[in-house]
Amino acid sequence: MDHLPVLGLDADDTLWENEAHFRQTEDRFLDLVAPWADHETAAAALLAAEKANLSVTGYGIKGFVLSMVETAISLSDGACDADRIGTILDWGRWMLQAPVDPLPGVAETLEVLAADHRLLVITKGDLGEQLRKVAASGLAGHFWQVEVVAHKTAEAYRDVLDGHGITPADFVMVGNSVPSDVLPVLALGGRAVHVPHHTTWALETVHADDVDGHDFPVLDSLAELPALLTDWRG
Amino acid sequence: MDHLPVLGLDADDTLWENEAHFRQTEDRFLDLVAPWADHETAAAALLAAEKANLSVTGYGIKGFVLSMVETAISLSDGACDADRIGTILDWGRWMLQAPVDPLPGVAETLEVLAADHRLLVITKGDLGEQLRKVAASGLAGHFWQVEVVAHKTAEAYRDVLDGHGITPADFVMVGNSVPSDVLPVLALGGRAVHVPHHTTWALETVHADDVDGHDFPVLDSLAELPALLTDWRG
Repeated sequence: MDHLPVLGLDADDTLWENEAHFRQTEDRFLDLVAPWADHETAAAALLAAEKANLSVTGYGIKGFVLSMVETAISLSDGACDADRIGTILDWGRWMLQAPVDPLPGVAETLEVLAADHRLLVITKGDLGEQLRKVAASGLAGHFWQVEVVAHKTAEAYRDVLDGHGITPADFVMVGNSVPSDVLPVLALGGRAVHVPHHTTWALETVHADDVDGHDFPVLDSLAELPALLTDWRG
Repeated sequence: MDHLPVLGLDADDTLWENEAHFRQTEDRFLDLVAPWADHETAAAALLAAEKANLSVTGYGIKGFVLSMVETAISLSDGACDADRIGTILDWGRWMLQAPVDPLPGVAETLEVLAADHRLLVITKGDLGEQLRKVAASGLAGHFWQVEVVAHKTAEAYRDVLDGHGITPADFVMVGNSVPSDVLPVLALGGRAVHVPHHTTWALETVHADDVDGHDFPVLDSLAELPALLTDWRG
């Protein structure tokens, strides 16, 4: 299968639901700290903590839990009791072990794509968390390789492609995030396809200016991808 | 340099101090929960929490912080105040950004080794935490590749070696942990060198039975490695 073209796939919110679990937990968090802050204030404080902690904790559930605990303590001015903090830890433990359900149509589409591509999952985040999700998704059998990177920069993509002897011009990346899955791959001279998801983290949204001058296909769902790739191969 | 032999190196407690930071923080934690438990009881409770959480949180500082918070809440039966929990979070933030000082003689030895080896760091743990330490150590220039794996099993080593086209028989691994750095590599048919460190985590110690029948060199320090490798090359 060495001759098959390599197709890069993002994982979270491209292959399975992820961001929604964070937002559900955030909703519960906003209720938990309601004695000390209204929802809007609390949501802003949590996002600010996540943003400030990102360079220290990296992406992932454990960093999110630490940001929630920190925010509960600061919003309550130290009045938050241990029971509430224990509840936040319980949510984290649940998220770390939650079932991973492929999005509708994804399993069938991967089966089609895997017949004439080597599927290379490129996902950013916590190594253990991401590998667990790959295993729990039931999709692992379709993947040629899985690469977990700390950040999805053009350099990170170049390192992954170099490591597998892939020329960017022969590479297509597919994902739900314009800044993480599309723009860095276009910058390397590769091709990219955007499949938006219904829920996008505030720190993954894109400014119109950044997209200006870039042209890439936007699909309603992954199920439309095989036809597009067939078109591209002409 | 493609013809140079590949030398595998563990990182934490082989190239730089790591476990000692955890043990220092643990000592402070034992003082913090002293109102509710003596040191021995608290240390046992923390280790039990770490062990129970390992499969959920993986290795690393963030999981350790979550285990400390959980243990403080359970030992105090919910009486632990938010200030104390905030203090635990502060320790975590410090550990995540702490300076990374190479062990004595390591920088000089790596310079010697890198002259006639491709140095492949294989470290387990949190991807972001491990990559930060590599960068902060000032040693990155010596390394050919850095691989962060979730667990150091024989399968994980085989995947890394396959990925780089390395035959186990041509591979030597060096590290401070017998179960993580020595035994799985011997199981693959590679060679391994043990360089013990003064501090070893309880979950990384080895039973005499596991070592029985295995023969591998044990060095007092990494500085003795170049002479040993020269000997092996005959």
